Amino acid sequence: MQITFDPDRLCVVLVSTRNPLNIGAVARAMCNFGFSRLRVVNPYEAAFREARSAVGAVSILANAKEFETVAEAIADCTLVVGTTALKHRQPQHPLRTLAKGSSIIAQQLNSAATGTHRAAILFGSEKVGLSNDDLSHCHWLMHIPTGEEQPSMNLGQAVAVCLYELVRCEIVPRPVEQEAGASAREMDRLTDILLETLQASDYLSAHPSAEKQMEIRRLVRRLQLSSEDSTVLLGMLRQILWKLQKGHLRP
Amino acid sequence: MQITFDPDRLCVVLVSTRNPLNIGAVARAMCNFGFSRLRVVNPYEAAFREARSAVGAVSILANAKEFETVAEAIADCTLVVGTTALKHRQPQHPLRTLAKGSSIIAQQLNSAATGTHRAAILFGSEKVGLSNDDLSHCHWLMHIPTGEEQPSMNLGQAVAVCLYELVRCEIVPRPVEQEAGASAREMDRLTDILLETLQASDYLSAHPSAEKQMEIRRLVRRLQLSSEDSTVLLGMLRQILWKLQKGHLRP
Repeated sequence: MQITFDPDRLCVVLVSTRNPLNIGAVARAMCNFGFSRLRVVNPYEAAFREARSAVGAVSILANAKEFETVAEAIADCTLVVGTTALKHRQPQHPLRTLAKGSSIIAQQLNSAATGTHRAAILFGSEKVGLSNDDLSHCHWLMHIPTGEEQPSMNLGQAVAVCLYELVRCEIVPRPVEQEAGASAREMDRLTDILLETLQASDYLSAHPSAEKQMEIRRLVRRLQLSSEDSTVLLGMLRQILWKLQKGHLRP
Repeated sequence: MQITFDPDRLCVVLVSTRNPLNIGAVARAMCNFGFSRLRVVNPYEAAFREARSAVGAVSILANAKEFETVAEAIADCTLVVGTTALKHRQPQHPLRTLAKGSSIIAQQLNSAATGTHRAAILFGSEKVGLSNDDLSHCHWLMHIPTGEEQPSMNLGQAVAVCLYELVRCEIVPRPVEQEAGASAREMDRLTDILLETLQASDYLSAHPSAEKQMEIRRLVRRLQLSSEDSTVLLGMLRQILWKLQKGHLRP
């Protein structure tokens, strides 16, 4: 086994997992392939840390971080990738095969100038996968090429296959200097102020629908911003918003 | 998913499996990747066919063939490959990585003159893997590249990874469906209205320097916009600009 990026830069994020045995199986697969950063959002069973299926991976479960929202779980990540069975395909997002997607993740984590890069792979609940709201936090989606007859994999098996592919791909180090991507937190901030600006300009109603907000969140993610550019855009929007509000206050 | 050989030519052979839930999980993974020939040698639990873990794969369990010896289970196979964690490495056998081994299996099953070719992949029991006696039936061995700290995988996860690799190497790359990129004209239009908006909000002076204008033009190009997204952003900026100018005109 040989990966050329720091495995601590990759987080496995489990969203609303119902069966704690699956969380344990995920921890075991992570341990098999040399990963250790497990994050758990709203697990159905609070006592998942005792899952017996985490053979050899007790410390991964013990150190798993628990969050109430996807946004918090991925706040420090510069790349957020959702997983989906083909049947749940979201045409709003670019969709990549696991093989292609993994090589992109590995490249990004591997590139020289990415001291702050961190990637998250999101897995949804056993029954329904990731919700549209969960997906709106993702830059793009990745699917395992399962057959149409039975596309939906067991969670522990799906994670094992994804991590195997990451370890499998032979990584040619990229010498190209790449700017650090905007973190999820930076993009959230940008999304918030964009929403506020669009409301102040009557582009959006004062209380835009959740669907509308998700659309705009996805739009911001598609921009593939560097951290620096997101700061510049944030400054622009702040000034525009201030000016809009000032105009509004005039008698 | 697309493999170019007949999936019925591949058998998954589980030897002395203890936990029927693992047999069910194997059946599920087989179903996910389009395989159906399951053979079971001396399972610990006779009632494995009821395993609830075989989600969507009940017929694979129902049709699984049961044998008393490995020799009988693989009697009709022309290629027999054992799986092993590195720690159980048998120097008597050629050892291949999963990636290399799978491509050999696929090639053999795929080649034109192989009307009678049939391959088996053997998986040992959860505790001890394949015995030396089991291994003696194998042409060569294959291992999943797990880390040395915890090389031993859960059986269902190991089978999922192996079958994924078989399917993977036969996958015809599907083009990532990518939206049409914004044209230079669209980006110019966006840049112009952004500049105007930034002037109207006093972020930029009324006559920004050529250098400043270029900076912003470069920023817009870095966004890697699709044509559709550029239209959406244009609409947002038009509305914001209109609102800013309206505020400005007030007495």
